Amino acid sequence: MEGGGLQLMRDFYKSFNVIQFPAGNTGAQMGGWFRKEIKNLEDLRGLKMRIAGLGGQVIARLGVVPQNIPPGDLYAALERGTIDAAEWIGPHDDERLGFVKIAKFYYYPGWWDPCAQTNVFVNLDQSGKLPKSYQAALETACAEVHGWMVAAYDANNTAALRRLVAAGAQLRPFSADILSAAEKAAFETYDNIASRNEKFKMVYEPWKKFRQDQLLWFSVAENSLDSAILTTNRSRAQ
Amino acid sequence: MEGGGLQLMRDFYKSFNVIQFPAGNTGAQMGGWFRKEIKNLEDLRGLKMRIAGLGGQVIARLGVVPQNIPPGDLYAALERGTIDAAEWIGPHDDERLGFVKIAKFYYYPGWWDPCAQTNVFVNLDQSGKLPKSYQAALETACAEVHGWMVAAYDANNTAALRRLVAAGAQLRPFSADILSAAEKAAFETYDNIASRNEKFKMVYEPWKKFRQDQLLWFSVAENSLDSAILTTNRSRAQ
Repeated sequence: MEGGGLQLMRDFYKSFNVIQFPAGNTGAQMGGWFRKEIKNLEDLRGLKMRIAGLGGQVIARLGVVPQNIPPGDLYAALERGTIDAAEWIGPHDDERLGFVKIAKFYYYPGWWDPCAQTNVFVNLDQSGKLPKSYQAALETACAEVHGWMVAAYDANNTAALRRLVAAGAQLRPFSADILSAAEKAAFETYDNIASRNEKFKMVYEPWKKFRQDQLLWFSVAENSLDSAILTTNRSRAQ
Repeated sequence: MEGGGLQLMRDFYKSFNVIQFPAGNTGAQMGGWFRKEIKNLEDLRGLKMRIAGLGGQVIARLGVVPQNIPPGDLYAALERGTIDAAEWIGPHDDERLGFVKIAKFYYYPGWWDPCAQTNVFVNLDQSGKLPKSYQAALETACAEVHGWMVAAYDANNTAALRRLVAAGAQLRPFSADILSAAEKAAFETYDNIASRNEKFKMVYEPWKKFRQDQLLWFSVAENSLDSAILTTNRSRAQ
């Protein structure tokens, strides 16, 4: 929204005669359901996993064979072993698909989906013809939904996660070697696309610089406070 | 917003014939400017510090003498040594007050202000008399500002932090013993207020339970991903 990102994406969509309004985000997602325990990078190699989009391109560099399976067929594919793993969203949505019954190991974080941004897409020419007050209503309503969706996921994920663990889910963090190899593979993938696709590059390069700046700020007050609270909480629970 | 918090606060404000709309948040704040290095809890004792509100009550339990000084007098008080430390907001706002020139040690995180929520307060009776479309416009405009303010602070804090470090600020994290004593003191303070104040208790108890639930979820996908990204980034920078 700030820092120029919204405008960069608007410039991109403009060539399709579309204007987008950010209208929701999932927050951080889970890494998905695995039939076997994944202890290190080696355990990922050769695994057939339902994972869509850019995440699939990235995880292929780690030796995973990405599969794009429609949601309706996912459960059966995972149950029969046609695939070894499937990622979807997070506890609140994953619970509905029932994966816990057939693939116990529930990994986190979903590093390929640190969040998923949803947008409302509108015909650019037509939206400009709306009365100004309608344009403002559309824009502010999308903004309200945006904040609400983040809050609703945060509020609902905990209860769903508790139910999933009670139903037998084995919570497991991805190992440090997987996470660091994944980040390297992600930026190799992005760099590769940027070298071939000018439109991708126009958004990617400023985004990369902005992300790097944000890491500086988030490593200071935000992450240090979150981590201190979680550490205190863990030591109290023991 | 979700989980019942907005409604609890609305119930509280209702007794003042007021309705509030969340309309902005600062995100995590900084711990403020100290004339001397603070290595542990012992170094805090006897310190005179500008810190307002509940934070002042909490930090008093750690031996700090909280001072409530108007913003216009803060710089002079810190320069003359009338106070030893002052907290304000974060890099973007702190920079304007020029503290870096007179108190080099810039501590984080501002554990007494993990965020500051701003609200628009409206006369409840009068707001109910507005046409429905005006009521909706007010609510959605506040929601839009809410998201924008968080994004604007995040985007602006990094550049300000860089300038402050270039101007001589010595960034320092509060020690683990300070952070853990601070959390203990905070909950003692809240419990104490709740035991005397029924209205506080009505919001505090559900909030405390909700916070505990959120810690479970945030310790999984959100914090593990943030921490992994920051670790990779730090090791790359070295």
